[in-house]
Amino acid sequence: MNRQELVNTIREKKSYLCVGLDTDISKIPKHLLSHADPVFAFNKAIIDATKDLCVAYKINTAFYESLGIRGWETLQRTVEYIPKGIFTIADAKRGDIGNTATQYAKTFYETYAFDSVTVAPYMGKDSVTPFLEFNQKWAIVLGLTSNEGSKDFQLQKVGNTYLYEKVMKTCASWGTVENMMFVVGATQADSIGHIRSFLPDHFFLVPGVGAQGGSLKDISEKGLNKDGGLLVNASRAVIYAGNDENFAEDARNSAMKYQAEMGMYLGNAI
Amino acid sequence: MNRQELVNTIREKKSYLCVGLDTDISKIPKHLLSHADPVFAFNKAIIDATKDLCVAYKINTAFYESLGIRGWETLQRTVEYIPKGIFTIADAKRGDIGNTATQYAKTFYETYAFDSVTVAPYMGKDSVTPFLEFNQKWAIVLGLTSNEGSKDFQLQKVGNTYLYEKVMKTCASWGTVENMMFVVGATQADSIGHIRSFLPDHFFLVPGVGAQGGSLKDISEKGLNKDGGLLVNASRAVIYAGNDENFAEDARNSAMKYQAEMGMYLGNAI
Repeated sequence: MNRQELVNTIREKKSYLCVGLDTDISKIPKHLLSHADPVFAFNKAIIDATKDLCVAYKINTAFYESLGIRGWETLQRTVEYIPKGIFTIADAKRGDIGNTATQYAKTFYETYAFDSVTVAPYMGKDSVTPFLEFNQKWAIVLGLTSNEGSKDFQLQKVGNTYLYEKVMKTCASWGTVENMMFVVGATQADSIGHIRSFLPDHFFLVPGVGAQGGSLKDISEKGLNKDGGLLVNASRAVIYAGNDENFAEDARNSAMKYQAEMGMYLGNAI
Repeated sequence: MNRQELVNTIREKKSYLCVGLDTDISKIPKHLLSHADPVFAFNKAIIDATKDLCVAYKINTAFYESLGIRGWETLQRTVEYIPKGIFTIADAKRGDIGNTATQYAKTFYETYAFDSVTVAPYMGKDSVTPFLEFNQKWAIVLGLTSNEGSKDFQLQKVGNTYLYEKVMKTCASWGTVENMMFVVGATQADSIGHIRSFLPDHFFLVPGVGAQGGSLKDISEKGLNKDGGLLVNASRAVIYAGNDENFAEDARNSAMKYQAEMGMYLGNAI
């Protein structure tokens, strides 16, 4: 999916909601466990219930990888089930060099046909640029993450600036606003305005609202740009909103609240 | 595998060679392509030809992941074929937080039963410590890598020190020499003596000899400690030493040269 298509979708749906399919087989409603593929049965119901409210789905690959080969089968079924026109994110945080990075890019862009993959920047240019060489595919580079551990390295000073700022500015110089986004945690609302000042046009993938406590209002006020420019992810707060036979309806109600709030903020911005 | 078992194996085999199974289906001898699982057929022959000469095998997961589900089947077959007593490394460079990191740890330590997995440190403490909570399993954290891009961030100054040094010292404080190793690229021989000065007891996984040009002599003189303390990886220089029906014998001959040289350096050190 290209940038203009994504922007159009955000305008049409009045939403920049990304639903995170971090589906943990130990947390899904018990009545699904009799299905041949319980995680897919869950994902299918969540997608059916939220596809008109969100503009993206993010699949946290760890939850699928840990199930072994059948987990990858579930992942493949899930990606294939996501309707065309919704942006797909492999939240896989890959990062390696040269030909190995190309293999990872092919894995997610071609083998599983995602629109994008999250990328870890620690190894530098030759670990990031191989993800930029595919038409209408996106590298989403870790910038400033939502977790406590972001203080350990990302918030260390490199010269006069924080490491995350150095990383984001440097990586941005290797790509364009058409093939690169950044991860910026929702719990970092104080920083998001600052980041927007030096990256006015990039999309940011923002995890951490809901269960992790980030404020949608703060993020939106500081992070929205004229194209939207945000994909705000909610995982647990949507997919585990309920835990019985009405789980899909509960997920829909949760997604509707996010979408309604987003529609309000978008009305002021784009 | 625990540390003492690894040290004993290094002493017995007079080797600290790790063979990297970065097996690219487009580079293996053509006569193998008629096998039901050509990559496994190749890996099996390489393992048979080198298992008495090396102490570890490193599987670069990207080459398997890019083949989709059948790639994971090949990976599983390969890990299961590696003889007991040889240290296994999933070179997967995973890095995510909390429960997601735990899912990755379970993927490689339990689902596929590797001894260790490579871990990217950018997200900080809560992305690294979940990999340390499994008995006799190892996180191998990226320290200073062998690629050109290591200059972009790892070799930036944080206060009076390089970022890689800050990362390695900080990560080392979260684990022990029994559950953590570091990746130090062979092309960074000038730095390996310095790194050894502040991490005297940790094992280092050293990729980059052979095709990437690192010197085994330099690395060994500067990096060996009383327990060996190095796993030096050769991938292409061993597995693609030949490319016809004698490829396994050619791989063995290449591994023998490394082992013979290592035996000489080890004789002086441990």
